[in-house]
Amino acid sequence: MKAFIKLNCDLGESFGAWQMGMDSQVMPLIDQANIACGFHGGDPTVLVQTLTLAKQHQIEIGAHPSYDDKQGFGRRSIKMPADELKHLLWYQIAAVDGVAKSLGLSISYVKPHGALYNDMMANSALLETVMQAVASFYRPLKLMLLATTATTQHKALAERYQLELLFEAFADRRYQSDGSLTPRSRPGSVLDHQAALLQVQQLLHSGTVQSDSGETLSIEADTLCVHGDNPAALGLVQSIRDLLAGA
Amino acid sequence: MKAFIKLNCDLGESFGAWQMGMDSQVMPLIDQANIACGFHGGDPTVLVQTLTLAKQHQIEIGAHPSYDDKQGFGRRSIKMPADELKHLLWYQIAAVDGVAKSLGLSISYVKPHGALYNDMMANSALLETVMQAVASFYRPLKLMLLATTATTQHKALAERYQLELLFEAFADRRYQSDGSLTPRSRPGSVLDHQAALLQVQQLLHSGTVQSDSGETLSIEADTLCVHGDNPAALGLVQSIRDLLAGA
Amino acid sequence: MKAFIKLNCDLGESFGAWQMGMDSQVMPLIDQANIACGFHGGDPTVLVQTLTLAKQHQIEIGAHPSYDDKQGFGRRSIKMPADELKHLLWYQIAAVDGVAKSLGLSISYVKPHGALYNDMMANSALLETVMQAVASFYRPLKLMLLATTATTQHKALAERYQLELLFEAFADRRYQSDGSLTPRSRPGSVLDHQAALLQVQQLLHSGTVQSDSGETLSIEADTLCVHGDNPAALGLVQSIRDLLAGA
Amino acid sequence: MKAFIKLNCDLGESFGAWQMGMDSQVMPLIDQANIACGFHGGDPTVLVQTLTLAKQHQIEIGAHPSYDDKQGFGRRSIKMPADELKHLLWYQIAAVDGVAKSLGLSISYVKPHGALYNDMMANSALLETVMQAVASFYRPLKLMLLATTATTQHKALAERYQLELLFEAFADRRYQSDGSLTPRSRPGSVLDHQAALLQVQQLLHSGTVQSDSGETLSIEADTLCVHGDNPAALGLVQSIRDLLAGA
Repeated sequence: MKAFIKLNCDLGESFGAWQMGMDSQVMPLIDQANIACGFHGGDPTVLVQTLTLAKQHQIEIGAHPSYDDKQGFGRRSIKMPADELKHLLWYQIAAVDGVAKSLGLSISYVKPHGALYNDMMANSALLETVMQAVASFYRPLKLMLLATTATTQHKALAERYQLELLFEAFADRRYQSDGSLTPRSRPGSVLDHQAALLQVQQLLHSGTVQSDSGETLSIEADTLCVHGDNPAALGLVQSIRDLLAGA
Repeated sequence: MKAFIKLNCDLGESFGAWQMGMDSQVMPLIDQANIACGFHGGDPTVLVQTLTLAKQHQIEIGAHPSYDDKQGFGRRSIKMPADELKHLLWYQIAAVDGVAKSLGLSISYVKPHGALYNDMMANSALLETVMQAVASFYRPLKLMLLATTATTQHKALAERYQLELLFEAFADRRYQSDGSLTPRSRPGSVLDHQAALLQVQQLLHSGTVQSDSGETLSIEADTLCVHGDNPAALGLVQSIRDLLAGA
Repeated sequence: MKAFIKLNCDLGESFGAWQMGMDSQVMPLIDQANIACGFHGGDPTVLVQTLTLAKQHQIEIGAHPSYDDKQGFGRRSIKMPADELKHLLWYQIAAVDGVAKSLGLSISYVKPHGALYNDMMANSALLETVMQAVASFYRPLKLMLLATTATTQHKALAERYQLELLFEAFADRRYQSDGSLTPRSRPGSVLDHQAALLQVQQLLHSGTVQSDSGETLSIEADTLCVHGDNPAALGLVQSIRDLLAGA
Repeated sequence: MKAFIKLNCDLGESFGAWQMGMDSQVMPLIDQANIACGFHGGDPTVLVQTLTLAKQHQIEIGAHPSYDDKQGFGRRSIKMPADELKHLLWYQIAAVDGVAKSLGLSISYVKPHGALYNDMMANSALLETVMQAVASFYRPLKLMLLATTATTQHKALAERYQLELLFEAFADRRYQSDGSLTPRSRPGSVLDHQAALLQVQQLLHSGTVQSDSGETLSIEADTLCVHGDNPAALGLVQSIRDLLAGA
């Protein structure tokens, strides 16, 4: 059983007067905080507050950049030239990087958000652009992406850019046979508490998940994506944390 | 005569499809580029283009942060708590700092823009907040502000934060008796080509300017603010450059 | 006792993925919905949802425009020329007016939001600009503003523009001796449930409130501003509604 | 020869301090002004200025809504649910409609902008959503779209919603064999002055254009799209106007 898997969670997604997520409750339960950069959620003050919270809990932090789309919460694909996407990523990573440093912290990875994450997993040209953007940032950062059945190819591509990857699995999402996630729009795509715990257990014990068509997929994951949006999500994180502690 | 005064200019203020400024023409004529951070002008792609241009001309670069106000071009005062202003400045400086580094460049100073610049010159509490923000950035950057008759006090305040200051004078703006600029809204506040050249000459030769009420003010300036918005402005920069070359 | 006072509440202030307010719970309890126009809160979809809810409950609706400031939730003053403010108001009122009409509804009044509301109550030139903006909209709308000791002057000013006014009182805010609200930043400025109910009772029975310095102020109010942000606020609205029903 | 074809042009696309287009020069030469609604270009003040200019020249006006994308000038596709697109369109049309009315004007049509225009011409489900949005606005407005070889089908679809259509042809764009425009990214897609004039002449005389593969296409157009972005574009509009005057 893989006892050392980490838990990562999207944080810092409040904006101005609008609250989102139970950041202070979930922060003590996780290992890696994916911190919104102000383009789908977050703003300069929320960013400082979230980084300060991460500092208190001494957890690993990463930038969580997105398309420029507050109203759509970064969940809407926006087509743009590769160069512009690279600049968009640099800008957001730089903002979080420099503010973190000013608080005595250091980001170690980048995890794209929402539609950008989905687009890069579905489109290898876009994934390569994201890799180039992260690899050409002024200091080395890892890229977090979905652990799928294409992990070997993704590693090969990243090696060209001397980019280190972090692969993540999902606790509460149903997998398709290629290791991608069943779209949220489809019924049964989000697992309930019990099914999610079972998926995590199988992943820890055998490094596999069951796809929606019943296949057993090998999934090599460094970290597990969890959520802190609501009490139920928080309860699942606590249960997973207990599971890992008992491992 | 002070032959070593530098010329600084606001650049990178185009936004998306909207062009502003004659950046490529003015860049070869100046020493310091104040680069918009995306809050009053600029965007991630404009930022990369502007930094790339500055790299070609090997000139000093600084971040040019502002209130969050694209429609108002950062020219409208927005009241906010000191902490939020500090976060706003960190965010913008960090964005430009990290993107610049990724292009092999390094920013060396910060010059606030528009209403934020005016507000900090008029309100010493706000100036102190700006000083704290710049001084607490993760690496030392200078703060560029207006050379006035209060320069000594400003230096004393900055010393508390171990912050280095750069003082700037204006070529084409009429001064008031306290060394502040006559508001643009007042007639005669903007000097014509000939009057601006005379003001620069006097500044270089005797370190003084004439106020709107006829007083002679001592102005200790490290750098001279010029503009590259239009052909006339560009012509003035060229004339000032010629004046400096002949000095 | 004035049994016919109305209850008004700010609604439609969610934005994209961010929820704010308990709109569906408070809507059945109020008479007038002040609907965010998309500049401090709301967006086109939230606007349609809020108007649809108002339609179900057949309540009066008004536009609730603000400064252009999502991050600051319209609570930060933004200085701008009178003309620009007028255009800003027209734009927001027009957006809500036309969308409401497309849903078979009709707005009947305008209530400025946040810093704009405070600024217009503190600055008579700004109040006049707001009056001009509302009065020059293509069809007659009333302007809702604070009932103070200056109500007579405000009515005289409005008459010049043939503008009808709606005066509102606050249930849960402490008054100052000129009838303005004690700033939220001051301790005791927000009344607890019991004190708020007493203030409402006094207002209904005698048309007066007690100021923070103990004076009795005559307050002529058409409507009472209530809030639906949280369960406690909602509880107060229910209690006020019960009070009115028992009147 | 069809002497009565109208000329339409996108206007009001300046934003804050950024100028775009030679609106005051092109306005006297055209018949229909497509007025930006503030989402890809324009802002409340630019809107009022543009409408005021249209009023002086007594020309027909329409709303020119777009995706919510200032940085991308509405030229980037943003995927969104049909309902949200409908709300987005209502909001923008309502804003321009109400401000126009407050200036004593009345918009008569809607022409989607940029990527939204291209998407609706390429995707009939999206076109139907746009038709539903315009048809369900509280008062009748026409929809302006591209005259293609599918004009008959588009008319049939519009009839279901009792929506009147305006078909436009392009003076300076090369056509493909299905009557769609050759993408701007392809060489030769934009015609020079002389070729554009010839295309207009052929359209006026025979109601046809030549496609990029040499076919003769029947194009039934009510209006001709022209541009006022730069002196060359303006020169073409003048030449087309002369051609129409001589017809």
